[in-house]
Amino acid sequence: MTINFCSNCGGPMEQRIPEADDHIRSVCKHCGFIHYLNPKTVVGTIPEYKDKILLCRRNIEPQKGKWTLPAGYLENGESVQDGAARETLEETLANVKIIEPYRMFNIVHVNQIYVMFRATLPSPEFGPTKESMDVRLFHEKDIPWENIAFKVIKETLRNYYCDKKKGIYPFKVGDIHRHS
Amino acid sequence: MTINFCSNCGGPMEQRIPEADDHIRSVCKHCGFIHYLNPKTVVGTIPEYKDKILLCRRNIEPQKGKWTLPAGYLENGESVQDGAARETLEETLANVKIIEPYRMFNIVHVNQIYVMFRATLPSPEFGPTKESMDVRLFHEKDIPWENIAFKVIKETLRNYYCDKKKGIYPFKVGDIHRHS
Ligand SMILES: [Zn+2]
Ligand SMILES: [Zn+2]
Repeated sequence: MTINFCSNCGGPMEQRIPEADDHIRSVCKHCGFIHYLNPKTVVGTIPEYKDKILLCRRNIEPQKGKWTLPAGYLENGESVQDGAARETLEETLANVKIIEPYRMFNIVHVNQIYVMFRATLPSPEFGPTKESMDVRLFHEKDIPWENIAFKVIKETLRNYYCDKKKGIYPFKVGDIHRHS
Repeated sequence: MTINFCSNCGGPMEQRIPEADDHIRSVCKHCGFIHYLNPKTVVGTIPEYKDKILLCRRNIEPQKGKWTLPAGYLENGESVQDGAARETLEETLANVKIIEPYRMFNIVHVNQIYVMFRATLPSPEFGPTKESMDVRLFHEKDIPWENIAFKVIKETLRNYYCDKKKGIYPFKVGDIHRHS
């Protein structure tokens, strides 16, 4: 994202280190307004129903047609738990109950932080939405590993099934690299 | 933060719900660019040295003169752990080693997410900086509870000493409300 004009006064921008700062920022030449760019948080869930989990098949780019866990950008005015539940509802029509935080991932090369929660589906009610062409419950043996949309989701699922065998789900922070 | 002008083309903005969205956004009337506003992540540490922890006394507003744990905004291009260690170095001159994530807090009314890590100080090397007029190691009995800068830091410290008595530090997500 390039900042060409000041969102405060519409003036031209320059790249420099502001006083009492140590990072290069976009600063307005006219009014001095500093435009900070910070990582965005993506929140999502692993919705559990009995011994299955809910996946959704993307109806939008990128990765249209691939399967994923419900997740999306945290919005102003909501908690991480509320955001994760909202994204799950928007993408699967399922009203989940958040259990606990499960994984955080740094995706430094795209300036994203993922926070994934374990969640329960009180009843098997869900369905396709504008964002998801298909929504289904999967047993571990049926997970479409070759058709998972994003590396961070594949890693979350791998971690989840590994922990499921042990019956404990400790919270951890991981990293997703561009090539790995 | 109000967006008066488009950062892409400098054109005038309007507040409306974009197509295929369900939130009101700042949208450019001229080029259609959508300006998203998302919560910012603050990362910090509880730096441990033997049975003490490191606090810094703020040299800048807000809450100048009050004590706090080292913490600040996560920057693009760094992991949450690296950001927490960087902020600790900037505010206390201490080079900590991150142990593990300890607390996440939603501060919904200011659109912030805090992520606080337990960390160790390999040696008692630290000192004042531009941001901290004083930096000191504290025993629990000496913590200046009446002079802690922010509610989120007081809550982190309370949680920490409660867990310390039990000798386990489970990761949890909490909420900080405006009045409580
Ligand atoms: Zn300006
Ligand atoms: Zn524009």
